[in-house]
Amino acid sequence: MKLLYPTSLILDPSKISSSFPTISLHPYDVQSPTIPQDHHNADILITWTNSPQNLSYAVTNLHQLKWIQSLAAGPNDVLSAGFDSSKIKITTGSGLHDRTVAEHTLGLLLVAARRFHEMRDLQNQGKWPGHLGGPQPDRPKGSFRTLRDAKVTIWGFGNIAKTLTPHLVGLGASVVGVARREGIRDGIQVYGEDKLKEVLQGTDALVMILPGDKTTRHVLNKETLSWLPNHAWVVNVGRGTSVDEDALYEALEEGSIGGAALDVFETEPLPEGNKLYGAKNLVLSPHAAGGRPQGSEELIIENLAKFVKGEELKNLI
Amino acid sequence: MKLLYPTSLILDPSKISSSFPTISLHPYDVQSPTIPQDHHNADILITWTNSPQNLSYAVTNLHQLKWIQSLAAGPNDVLSAGFDSSKIKITTGSGLHDRTVAEHTLGLLLVAARRFHEMRDLQNQGKWPGHLGGPQPDRPKGSFRTLRDAKVTIWGFGNIAKTLTPHLVGLGASVVGVARREGIRDGIQVYGEDKLKEVLQGTDALVMILPGDKTTRHVLNKETLSWLPNHAWVVNVGRGTSVDEDALYEALEEGSIGGAALDVFETEPLPEGNKLYGAKNLVLSPHAAGGRPQGSEELIIENLAKFVKGEELKNLI
Repeated sequence: MKLLYPTSLILDPSKISSSFPTISLHPYDVQSPTIPQDHHNADILITWTNSPQNLSYAVTNLHQLKWIQSLAAGPNDVLSAGFDSSKIKITTGSGLHDRTVAEHTLGLLLVAARRFHEMRDLQNQGKWPGHLGGPQPDRPKGSFRTLRDAKVTIWGFGNIAKTLTPHLVGLGASVVGVARREGIRDGIQVYGEDKLKEVLQGTDALVMILPGDKTTRHVLNKETLSWLPNHAWVVNVGRGTSVDEDALYEALEEGSIGGAALDVFETEPLPEGNKLYGAKNLVLSPHAAGGRPQGSEELIIENLAKFVKGEELKNLI
Repeated sequence: MKLLYPTSLILDPSKISSSFPTISLHPYDVQSPTIPQDHHNADILITWTNSPQNLSYAVTNLHQLKWIQSLAAGPNDVLSAGFDSSKIKITTGSGLHDRTVAEHTLGLLLVAARRFHEMRDLQNQGKWPGHLGGPQPDRPKGSFRTLRDAKVTIWGFGNIAKTLTPHLVGLGASVVGVARREGIRDGIQVYGEDKLKEVLQGTDALVMILPGDKTTRHVLNKETLSWLPNHAWVVNVGRGTSVDEDALYEALEEGSIGGAALDVFETEPLPEGNKLYGAKNLVLSPHAAGGRPQGSEELIIENLAKFVKGEELKNLI
């Protein structure tokens, strides 16, 4: 059995080969438009930051491929290249990005609450941002200035949300979730989307961690934005397509929400000249929340064990 | 017995009066250059953001004063006004600021690690900060890009450090302390200052939470800065006097440290034209970490109970 692994991140193939001595492991260049002919008989392909050409080439030429293990959180690039999940097993790297995305999200929430972006703007002008320092009212109403006692809503309550929540709770926030299925998850009340209006009306900070598919397109739009209080911040670390950027821009300019910290955009990189760069109270992060898979070898080994036994793979789409 | 309480923050005097019906409570204006003659017979003065004139007036005119309860973390303003702690009990608001300072410090550490300030600068130029996003090496050596597995040293290991540490540990950081007395505090190894060189040499981020007195003046200076690795960040939320700002500026410009996020300065506000505004990799915050005392009534009540019984007060200097 032949497995191709990417050279686009530091992996320790010896960890894998010591557990599976009969599988032959070969590195490959994920940015190359082709894959060497010697490897066209690969059974398993591990992907990470492959170029679209490289994946298209794999679709056309790797006819014995039975399984693709992506290390990305979602399967979008693999599916876009034309792989068919009804014919080939596709598994994602869901879980490998939880901690790094949670850390970045916490950072964006603290930038928003503590106004580090506004401080930076004044620093760059050589001015002391005095109105943001010194004695301040403690948790004034209608304001998002601290996570303590803040009402944080996480829309899309999967593993990243579960990893993020304890940090927010530890800082004194009150966290609820919104998801398709309602219920209690890890001790947090998760409401169904039918309760969205009611939940958003009581939200100080909305964290969006939704996947990018047809069902989530523009779910944050003119109507749903209007349910947020004027002081509420939106933090999006899921997919850019879940936000109607025109509606968000309007809400920011009107001041009908407090601000937005976005790590993802409908088009990335955000094109030069896009009005969002200069939108009022918008904090831009360049899809930087994840991008550092952690524990890849462990996931590959766990799934290889299931694969050789014919069991259902983890993170199968 | 007469107690004067400040109108410079939201306090609930009924909480206090219900526990101590025989004490008469009166609000006073901490920014006024005088205190009404009717109140010159006050026994207890609660202070918060008093003007220097107001405190000087109290020194000269409130002859029956037996105890000053400041809500600030340190007694500097009360002592500067001329109150003598050998003649009058002075207690601080130490502990009232732990959570808000810890949150701000965590925010500054995440700004540093995730480079939100650099993102902001490029956003303001209408440019996508692509080099800070997308796939990235996971925890590259000689770099401070995440708190996970980062070595964080907290210099000055009191209540704020104890409040901050669990948040850092929760994000995967490895935390040690430096203080005058070595020992284990809340499960964290705290080294004596004789070990400073060795500790700083292995530090990714140095958090300074030192009080502002003669013994801490310029303890971070040319020599001690030289012990930090080139990638290390300095975060100061203690007092500005503990850092030699000229030496810090040089270290930043030379790149002999990774950066500095400062909430406190030798002179505040930092004067216009000061070179620190434009220093390389310097993040400025306008003494914004604290400034929001929390649980003031509880501290006042606890200390009033001790005061009427003649017991030693909490946070007595």
